[in-house]
Amino acid sequence: MAKEIYLFEEGDGTNKKLLGGKGAGLCQMTQLGLPVPPGFVITTEVCKKYYEAGRRLPNGLMDKVKEAIAHIERKTGKKFGDPHNPLLVSVRSGAAISMPGMMDTILNLGLNDTTVNGLIEQTGDARFAYDTYRRFIQLFGKIVLGIDDKLFAEVFEEAKRKLSVKNDYELDVESLKIVVQRFKEICEKETGKPFPQDPYIQLEMAIGGVFKSWMGKRAVDYRREFKITPDIADGTAVNVMAMVFGNTGFNSATGVVFTRDPATGAKGLYGDYLVNAQGEDVVAGIRTPKPIDELKNEMPESYRELVEICDRLERFYKEPQDVEFTIEKGKLYILQTRDAKMNALALVRTSVDMCKEGILTKEEALLRVKPDQLEQLLHKTVDPKANVKPITKGVNASPGAACGKVVFDADEAERRGRSGERVILVREETKPEDIHGFFAAQGVLTSRGGKTSHAAVVARSMGKPCVVGAGEIVIDHEKRQFKVGNVIVKEGDLITIDGASGNVYIGEVPMIEPQLSTHLQELLSWANEFRKLGVRANADTPEAAKLARSFGAEGIGLCRTERMFNAVDRLPIVVKMILTDSEEERIEALNKLMPMQKNDFKDILRVMEGYPVTIRLLDPPLHEFLPRFEELLEEVNRLKYSKGFESELLEKQKILSRVRVMSEVNPMLGHRGVRVGITHPEIYEMQVRAICEAAAELIIEGIDVKPQIMIPQVAIAEELVVIKNIVNRVKEEVEKKYGVKIPIKYGTMIEVVRACLTADQIAKITDFFSFGTNDLTQGTFSFSREDVENKFLPIYISKGILKHNPFQTIDEEGVGKLIKIAVELGKAANPELEIGICGEHGGDPESITFCHKAGLTYVSASPYRIPVAILAASQAAIKAKNN
Amino acid sequence: MAKEIYLFEEGDGTNKKLLGGKGAGLCQMTQLGLPVPPGFVITTEVCKKYYEAGRRLPNGLMDKVKEAIAHIERKTGKKFGDPHNPLLVSVRSGAAISMPGMMDTILNLGLNDTTVNGLIEQTGDARFAYDTYRRFIQLFGKIVLGIDDKLFAEVFEEAKRKLSVKNDYELDVESLKIVVQRFKEICEKETGKPFPQDPYIQLEMAIGGVFKSWMGKRAVDYRREFKITPDIADGTAVNVMAMVFGNTGFNSATGVVFTRDPATGAKGLYGDYLVNAQGEDVVAGIRTPKPIDELKNEMPESYRELVEICDRLERFYKEPQDVEFTIEKGKLYILQTRDAKMNALALVRTSVDMCKEGILTKEEALLRVKPDQLEQLLHKTVDPKANVKPITKGVNASPGAACGKVVFDADEAERRGRSGERVILVREETKPEDIHGFFAAQGVLTSRGGKTSHAAVVARSMGKPCVVGAGEIVIDHEKRQFKVGNVIVKEGDLITIDGASGNVYIGEVPMIEPQLSTHLQELLSWANEFRKLGVRANADTPEAAKLARSFGAEGIGLCRTERMFNAVDRLPIVVKMILTDSEEERIEALNKLMPMQKNDFKDILRVMEGYPVTIRLLDPPLHEFLPRFEELLEEVNRLKYSKGFESELLEKQKILSRVRVMSEVNPMLGHRGVRVGITHPEIYEMQVRAICEAAAELIIEGIDVKPQIMIPQVAIAEELVVIKNIVNRVKEEVEKKYGVKIPIKYGTMIEVVRACLTADQIAKITDFFSFGTNDLTQGTFSFSREDVENKFLPIYISKGILKHNPFQTIDEEGVGKLIKIAVELGKAANPELEIGICGEHGGDPESITFCHKAGLTYVSASPYRIPVAILAASQAAIKAKNN
Repeated sequence: MAKEIYLFEEGDGTNKKLLGGKGAGLCQMTQLGLPVPPGFVITTEVCKKYYEAGRRLPNGLMDKVKEAIAHIERKTGKKFGDPHNPLLVSVRSGAAISMPGMMDTILNLGLNDTTVNGLIEQTGDARFAYDTYRRFIQLFGKIVLGIDDKLFAEVFEEAKRKLSVKNDYELDVESLKIVVQRFKEICEKETGKPFPQDPYIQLEMAIGGVFKSWMGKRAVDYRREFKITPDIADGTAVNVMAMVFGNTGFNSATGVVFTRDPATGAKGLYGDYLVNAQGEDVVAGIRTPKPIDELKNEMPESYRELVEICDRLERFYKEPQDVEFTIEKGKLYILQTRDAKMNALALVRTSVDMCKEGILTKEEALLRVKPDQLEQLLHKTVDPKANVKPITKGVNASPGAACGKVVFDADEAERRGRSGERVILVREETKPEDIHGFFAAQGVLTSRGGKTSHAAVVARSMGKPCVVGAGEIVIDHEKRQFKVGNVIVKEGDLITIDGASGNVYIGEVPMIEPQLSTHLQELLSWANEFRKLGVRANADTPEAAKLARSFGAEGIGLCRTERMFNAVDRLPIVVKMILTDSEEERIEALNKLMPMQKNDFKDILRVMEGYPVTIRLLDPPLHEFLPRFEELLEEVNRLKYSKGFESELLEKQKILSRVRVMSEVNPMLGHRGVRVGITHPEIYEMQVRAICEAAAELIIEGIDVKPQIMIPQVAIAEELVVIKNIVNRVKEEVEKKYGVKIPIKYGTMIEVVRACLTADQIAKITDFFSFGTNDLTQGTFSFSREDVENKFLPIYISKGILKHNPFQTIDEEGVGKLIKIAVELGKAANPELEIGICGEHGGDPESITFCHKAGLTYVSASPYRIPVAILAASQAAIKAKNN
Repeated sequence: MAKEIYLFEEGDGTNKKLLGGKGAGLCQMTQLGLPVPPGFVITTEVCKKYYEAGRRLPNGLMDKVKEAIAHIERKTGKKFGDPHNPLLVSVRSGAAISMPGMMDTILNLGLNDTTVNGLIEQTGDARFAYDTYRRFIQLFGKIVLGIDDKLFAEVFEEAKRKLSVKNDYELDVESLKIVVQRFKEICEKETGKPFPQDPYIQLEMAIGGVFKSWMGKRAVDYRREFKITPDIADGTAVNVMAMVFGNTGFNSATGVVFTRDPATGAKGLYGDYLVNAQGEDVVAGIRTPKPIDELKNEMPESYRELVEICDRLERFYKEPQDVEFTIEKGKLYILQTRDAKMNALALVRTSVDMCKEGILTKEEALLRVKPDQLEQLLHKTVDPKANVKPITKGVNASPGAACGKVVFDADEAERRGRSGERVILVREETKPEDIHGFFAAQGVLTSRGGKTSHAAVVARSMGKPCVVGAGEIVIDHEKRQFKVGNVIVKEGDLITIDGASGNVYIGEVPMIEPQLSTHLQELLSWANEFRKLGVRANADTPEAAKLARSFGAEGIGLCRTERMFNAVDRLPIVVKMILTDSEEERIEALNKLMPMQKNDFKDILRVMEGYPVTIRLLDPPLHEFLPRFEELLEEVNRLKYSKGFESELLEKQKILSRVRVMSEVNPMLGHRGVRVGITHPEIYEMQVRAICEAAAELIIEGIDVKPQIMIPQVAIAEELVVIKNIVNRVKEEVEKKYGVKIPIKYGTMIEVVRACLTADQIAKITDFFSFGTNDLTQGTFSFSREDVENKFLPIYISKGILKHNPFQTIDEEGVGKLIKIAVELGKAANPELEIGICGEHGGDPESITFCHKAGLTYVSASPYRIPVAILAASQAAIKAKNN
């Protein structure tokens, strides 16, 4: 049978899967000789057995636990349950992947009505002993016995009110004794049994409680959101460790430090501590802690030792660390170390710095940043030129500006978020239970807590703008509003928060586009050294093109032309073009559109000078530009049942019948893309002419243009032949008219399944392919994105029928297989073929890895995803080299 | 340079591609020593050159023509253009594939104002000579000069009126001379040039005219309808042959015979002839000819010779022949032979007979019947028990009963046919210009002509019911009605025609299902010896199942269950089930449906005893069972603008909003099939239980049942696992309840692209695949059948972008490739896998050939297509063996 328990002296510090991250760290630190209280780890395998056995601990486990406790007793000289010198322990969860706050922890276990006196003997501090006892009962009651925490909180608040004190530590022994008594009564009343006095019973129940929390709603939600699947972390370990106390007087303290600033990445200890407090007080944000720098003066010896330890840990792990420590009567203990969770800004900066400090190689520096996180660095910021005044200011906990409607609880945030509203979650402080509100919100604002409070940590991990500790804010949950002085902000009112400055504004404040930091620029320049994939942008406007170029795009991979049709000044012309039966009128309308399109193309080609610009001809079905059928029908009915609108009615009925004729049962699979180009060649001809003339006019200006004409929805090679004839003819005409040669490439979207299967035929008559993986995924699954994504797809993912949403991450088994077939056939038929991807997957790191493996030429992504794509492409190349 | 002209003595009789069918036959017959007038063939290659050169004859062609004419002159002793003994020739088209009446023919060429006298010298018959001359001018004027035939007809009718005669041959010489003069004047007036007198100019123009007719509208339409692509026939040849005259007196005749009855296949000459007439008179149906049997008495020597020749030709060509002959003053000439076009009945009978006569092997007998034609044999017939009286009776020209609304011209037939109406085309006689009307009509009725008239030939070739020569019918085109005695039938009135009896009825007459003839049964039994593919039926009702079984189906390949949901007594329950929010009400509704479905399944399983019955669980999206959105909206609007309907309005609005929520943008790709099964497992569970209980109850009755449960719309193997768990559980429950073991197979439609690509995973958890090629084609092309088939698909086919409608004939390059991938992956993962196809392609011969090659187990087709599928499957096997 596999070993179920490892002492900290025994465990393999690299085996996080077996020991959990926390357990592995404690073993590692113990073996490195760092001051870790003695303890042991119950493995994640035991957790799996616990569930396999129907939530029961394996037989014989507690005998082994007793042996391990005996080891701690030998190391500490204390005894578990001893009435004079009792050993107290903490019982903590710890999975392979850190899930901060998602699972449960029990402290001070081993206390009972007898050992509380032993604790007094040990410390000479009755107040401390009873305070510790009441903390234990409360935590144990809530987590292991499942009692509503409010019952305890009410008793405790009442005790404080009685003595008219504000802080917990101001309660005296007698009050605490009563609190303990009342807490025990609550437990007995709620569970029907007296509070357990046997420390081993307590320990057994606590171990089960921790295991149980692995499948708690919070933990399950978290794992789903962060895609933590069983192959990454399967069950939690349990860490049992001798208690040390940071709350045994003013030469005691507890704190959390990062070895570098997790918000900026700047080198140097960063964190907070509380004198005379237990760790939970820091994390919960109940008391506002002191910055770590002050420890240098208060406890210089401990501070020096902490700095040394942090440096050793960082070099050992090659990652900035997040370290929990406690100082008990002047002696420093390290209770936990783990890789520091950082926002993207800090990740980028630490990667660059640690590489320069010789801790990391360039490859390691690139690999440690998750590409998705870079998008966080491209948050908008409040325009410094905007003439706006904040109504208040808090702590700048997670950068970026966000605007949304105020909501006061996570459920409301989720409800509104789902229906597409932008919201800002505003609370006194946040708790792990609020996690779904974070997902739904644009940003988070709290009135309490510091930079390591729950809200700050979670928001940073998600890259959401966050302002914490904005103390002037007074929330009135009854009235669903908050006040800052005289200003009242109601639920649903718009506010803007600036997580970089901590400012809070009323209404929507002008913002500006983000710029790349010098650190990010450096990291991306390293990425460029490694990547093989080109990176282009999906951009339809000169502004978007400019932004993409500033982010490093090497061209436009997808410029949609339908958005140009939809512009306010053009739509009426487009509608007329569609509705007329007269060829003449249609051509007249197209002639009006031509110069407009030409100017669009000129602007974009000019911005992208020297780079390819791939312009997709009209894609949507024509009826998409017409008034909506339902609205028209309502209007017709309204006119029909009114009087005196006969001629108007007639007109509308005519349009209605036209719209009805043009409407389609499945527009996604209907008369669109190249099919329109073939039945209405005059439309494509107009667009081709606009592109050619734009190019010609710029060439005459001396500008280096590289237009590429891309045909959508191709299923049959012959479709491309028909359109190519138009392109060639128009190009010749324009070349003759302007007297210049236009360098133009001709290619196609590969977004129809059949195009993949006949890619050899298609490659022979094209210069490039561009995979449209959105449509290709729809065709491959027979899933209409609009119809399935909010309907059954979530059910499929929750039931494990699908691992990912295939519209976000490429489905390698199906869509990926088609892409491979197409690449193989295409390259064999035309070795010069350029192959890109311009679906949304072009900006998804996992999909980019796939594209690298599949041998694509480039990916194309939305401007904000360009840095993501560059980094992901470099990682794909590095990983391929390493394998 | 390739040889452009072949004398009949030279040409390779098997090279129809080069010489055309008619030319090859003439060469062959000449070389067999049959009495063919001398002549030559200008090849189809010359026709291609004519078009390549922009509709101009190749240089030097006419020199070679002159040489060939000299050959004819030598053989006949006549001279082209000779004023005393002139050679006259016919100039006929002839492509590789016979296209009767679709292209042009010119007779009597070489006549002019001088040679007409020579013709008088030759024949001593001035009336004949001038009649021949006027015929020539009229035909040449119409075809070569493009003059409206009406102008000639008016002059001719006027001449007849003047003499008060009825028949053409009653006109005297003087009248004919005037007619000739007037005809020439028409030509000069219409073309601005005198009628050409030089025979070589006439010949050159006529050759060009024939080539031009290859691209005439009629010919192009015909080729498109019959899928005659350039690889089958590319251009027409021109046959120039010495004229012989069947109109030189009462010892002359002209006629057309079939070597077997083209309507029944019975052995023996069959056809008609006209004494003292030219061939065109027979075909056009202007004079009613005599049956060929009478020739035995009138010209016994010629008749005996004709019978001999026909027998030789049939044994030589291994096909019944369609022979044109002319008797000129007692001497028999054969002017053309070609494979006889027959209806399916005759094809089947002649195949069986000729095999028994030792002319054909069984393989040859099977291969010569086009499978599609068998469907013609399954026409309904008028119920003999129906108590109906015909209003009139004509000639039974093409079997089968048809009912439709009367229309009087081809355009109207097409217009109504397109909008889905069933029509019967009623005319005095039909002409090649009416061809589009035939396509659109259910059947054809004429008041003139015999069994070889245009209407009869064309209707038989299409397998459409046809009654000709119903002389009592008097059509009034002005009033758009016809009369039979006192009965008036107006355009749009329903009539029924019975092409087997020649009867015509008012209104819709009861019909009965067809039965297999003994000949067809014999042919199909031979087919069964050869075929490897199984043949099953798509049938949803016991009636359809019974019919399919009587046609030879070996099981049900697709039993759709949604039609059972749509039955009048069930739909309200289904709607309630869908609209309720209460789980309880939904289950209650399903409990009501269960016994109904169980009875459906019992009936079908009972009919198909001993054979597999593949039942597909619910496929369409649930909203398909709800009232239509548009209708509801109209209703709501009506109620809204009326008064006093408040509560009704509220109710309707509730349903409307539910329908709106459930409606989908692209229902084809939405929440349907297995996706509904997964989100609403109670529906599939009900269906599975109904199947299992039906099977169990029949097993107890001692009936051998083989139910197969088939899941639609599967894209992901895991979907099948989820449903399989339900099936297994319910099956066990039912087995326990009834105390019997139920033999049940579990399988899936393969109709989603991704299922093909992951067929290995799917095969591991299924017993069978069934390709749903309708949906698979939609997914592969991104074509929504409903949206494209009547919109751009016809344009695609006419432009040659697609060769076939891929919803009719499997697209081998795309869809076929996916099928091959799926078969390969599936069989490798599960060698026991049974693989069928149940899309509409399962009844399409070309697609069946593909299925054979792809290694499928069976095809499933609609009941009427079962014999088609059996024959096609045997042909596929024979062809594969022969290759």
